[in-house]
Amino acid sequence: MSGKDVFHDVVRRSLEKDGWTITDDPLRILVEEVELLIDLGAEELLAAEKSGAKIAVEIKTFLQASAISTFHTALGQFLNYQEALELEQPERTLYLAIPNQAYKTFFARRFVQRIVSKYQLKLLIYDPKKEVIVEWRN
Amino acid sequence: MSGKDVFHDVVRRSLEKDGWTITDDPLRILVEEVELLIDLGAEELLAAEKSGAKIAVEIKTFLQASAISTFHTALGQFLNYQEALELEQPERTLYLAIPNQAYKTFFARRFVQRIVSKYQLKLLIYDPKKEVIVEWRN
Repeated sequence: MSGKDVFHDVVRRSLEKDGWTITDDPLRILVEEVELLIDLGAEELLAAEKSGAKIAVEIKTFLQASAISTFHTALGQFLNYQEALELEQPERTLYLAIPNQAYKTFFARRFVQRIVSKYQLKLLIYDPKKEVIVEWRN
Repeated sequence: MSGKDVFHDVVRRSLEKDGWTITDDPLRILVEEVELLIDLGAEELLAAEKSGAKIAVEIKTFLQASAISTFHTALGQFLNYQEALELEQPERTLYLAIPNQAYKTFFARRFVQRIVSKYQLKLLIYDPKKEVIVEWRN
């Protein structure tokens, strides 16, 4: 499996360990034009539920050499999905899942924090080695 | 040259034909943390001036099979650069350059128009065959 697929499964297991039920993997959202959000390949989201709470999770590894390029894509994808969810599944909250290592390094940068705050990105921070969720940041 | 590089040069020549002087290619913006926006590889912006007006141009081809994936990246990159420009070069206006074909098809979709409007993406539409700028959309 590619690094991307490994992290996808890690986040999936971390959520399950935390008591969440995975309801859609991948989560397919049809919005306004049917084909818009279904051709994302390996970038697909998963959906989960726990005690009536519903979430969608966008998984990024930030393993690539260029974290900023990954961040461009993560930000755009988050905002596009958030808009789609508001239209189609307004009860579902979107999170961007990132490894704790990326949270401590790349996401500690002032400019990145500024963007996270400006666009209100919700973060799900996970430990890929222990396969547990470390923190939810709303 | 790759398709991406070809389009980069096409936009560059289209701007020159329109009376713009290319001042930076690529445009490097250092913001808060020095290394943040300089490692974008082929995704780099160019900067131009004309009669005192200053612009930065993000060039996307939308040639890939998955236009929506390209759109995720284009949106995130636009918003990150816009924030960086506001901090470092507030007099410069950012445009996303797209081929007229993509403007007529992908950008005509309702969801895409919704996002363009919500995040106030400024578009520079160019004709890659004639190598001219077709329209500026603010």
